[in-house]
Amino acid sequence: MPRLQNDVLIRALLRQPVERTPLWIMRQAGRYLPEYRATRKRAGGFLKLCKTPELACEVTLQPIERFELDAAILFSDILTIPDAMGLGLHFNEGEGPVLERPVSNMRDVERIGQSEPMVALEYVCDAVRLTIRELDGRVPLIGFAGSPWTLATYMVEGQSSRDFRKIKAMLYREPEMLGRLLDILSSATAAYLAAQIAAGVQAVMIFDTWGGVLAHDAYLKFSLEPMQRIVTRLLQDQGECPVPIILFSKGVQNGLTDLATTGCHAVGLDWTTELGQARALIGTRVALQGNLDPVVLYAPDRVIRSEVKKILDQYGQGSGHVFNLGHGIQQYVDPEKVAVLVDAVREFSPAYH
Amino acid sequence: MPRLQNDVLIRALLRQPVERTPLWIMRQAGRYLPEYRATRKRAGGFLKLCKTPELACEVTLQPIERFELDAAILFSDILTIPDAMGLGLHFNEGEGPVLERPVSNMRDVERIGQSEPMVALEYVCDAVRLTIRELDGRVPLIGFAGSPWTLATYMVEGQSSRDFRKIKAMLYREPEMLGRLLDILSSATAAYLAAQIAAGVQAVMIFDTWGGVLAHDAYLKFSLEPMQRIVTRLLQDQGECPVPIILFSKGVQNGLTDLATTGCHAVGLDWTTELGQARALIGTRVALQGNLDPVVLYAPDRVIRSEVKKILDQYGQGSGHVFNLGHGIQQYVDPEKVAVLVDAVREFSPAYH
Repeated sequence: MPRLQNDVLIRALLRQPVERTPLWIMRQAGRYLPEYRATRKRAGGFLKLCKTPELACEVTLQPIERFELDAAILFSDILTIPDAMGLGLHFNEGEGPVLERPVSNMRDVERIGQSEPMVALEYVCDAVRLTIRELDGRVPLIGFAGSPWTLATYMVEGQSSRDFRKIKAMLYREPEMLGRLLDILSSATAAYLAAQIAAGVQAVMIFDTWGGVLAHDAYLKFSLEPMQRIVTRLLQDQGECPVPIILFSKGVQNGLTDLATTGCHAVGLDWTTELGQARALIGTRVALQGNLDPVVLYAPDRVIRSEVKKILDQYGQGSGHVFNLGHGIQQYVDPEKVAVLVDAVREFSPAYH
Repeated sequence: MPRLQNDVLIRALLRQPVERTPLWIMRQAGRYLPEYRATRKRAGGFLKLCKTPELACEVTLQPIERFELDAAILFSDILTIPDAMGLGLHFNEGEGPVLERPVSNMRDVERIGQSEPMVALEYVCDAVRLTIRELDGRVPLIGFAGSPWTLATYMVEGQSSRDFRKIKAMLYREPEMLGRLLDILSSATAAYLAAQIAAGVQAVMIFDTWGGVLAHDAYLKFSLEPMQRIVTRLLQDQGECPVPIILFSKGVQNGLTDLATTGCHAVGLDWTTELGQARALIGTRVALQGNLDPVVLYAPDRVIRSEVKKILDQYGQGSGHVFNLGHGIQQYVDPEKVAVLVDAVREFSPAYH
């Protein structure tokens, strides 16, 4: 394994001293980059891109070649697990993911419990190994997965949803069935992240995109608890020098303390949380990642710079902050604006350390 | 004006003693009711229903005839103001609202500033007067408006949005233009609510459906401050016995203290906020309204009853709680389930007073 030349992300996640605030960007390998669009076209679609290790590696590296970012994140999708469980994933142009065979009864759940997704997911580990080799220690590679709750929303709804009627009806009508599905997904996700770690990723992140649609007690039981089990399992497996784990529950402003006590190393924040308040609440337990509003990247350079300064001020002095957007970068952002963001974080952040 | 026979809502909003917890339901006059669908069909569409006082009155009363609710809410739409400003509102079946002439530059903003929406909105006051007469004091009538920020999102985006890219780009690129638009909307909304009050509504609510998409400081400036101006203006106009004002910023879990210090009488909560925590934070200043997850109404009766109990337990003993869903009732709910909800609140809540 090549030695890391830039480990500022890892140190910040472990709240060790750093000389500046590290920066990476959710969906940094994505549609706003013309070189990404070209590779995707060549691949013949998003899913082919995910499933072809050479191409996944290529697009993972694209933002690293272009910008001085402090981490790469594996190009993939959270729905690789449901896909590997046989639910029939495809992406309709401009419409988001569709699962052809959604889960609607206990027979479906048990069938999924008997699937062996890790066999089909070997391509992800291949992509990790190839990307680690190509990165050659320039920056760490982050692996990731969706949270069990978030995966379950797609698996039960069959697609993106506005009201999450089917899965939430299942939650209130048949909580045992949902619990069984989440058990299966927790085990599969823990195994998936462990395999990514074994293949070489130096940090992992769990994206709980839809935790925020739940009532607080339902969030704790159906979103947080399955993530807790994954964290516990990953920490057990790793001993003294664990790979840092980042948890991100989008839209969950009042679950931060609960997230911070799972044993994870860092909590991701969307842009609606005030970073200083979050630090006061949980900053002695975990590092914080975030949280510039992605839409700021449509603003003039001076506004981007002042909003970056505002985020750094909110966190204040000391390590434990990883700069990021509060959600994925949008496809219509001009890549030049990302350069402005990178420069601002590089220029302003040393004063905070 | 007929004297109120049931004023438990008004007393709870003013945190005066009550013998049970009042209940009303957001969108209680709506598509889940077959009699509503029949009237809407007869009217020839949603907007015609809003604009015909006799029909608006008819559907406002439908849930009151069917269930023992403690308030009626005027049947209308938050987009009546942009419509009256000449933006060309229509509803495409199953797609939500569209404004044909969205706001995109300062000329548009100034043209809107010169419109006189209250002339076109007289039909709303007619509907209020008629409904007050037909209610004959059985329960209070709640008037409402959208928050200036929420109206502005539709006026700039032209329709519902997932990422609010246009309005948020305006916020970061041209904050003065957005500020001017929000000024105009604050004045118009204050005049609109004052007119509803003059016509007879006994409480008003401001729906800030999209405050939750903003970063905290942007929320304070662009969503909360315009609402603050409306509250101040309404309180000034009314003297000793003000009509209670309810503010509801959906998805804003960490703006509760700010909402509670506007001078409003009550804060609405979506289902993601734990009611007991909210009471500890702001319950000495304001009443709280909410917050059962609307999806609970798809559950078996025993689950609805236990979830009602949970909400009552979370708030605890004493006045200052108005039972409601955390968001509008969904169209696929069986009306029988609403009866279960009403019965549960009527049966369980006296023990808390």
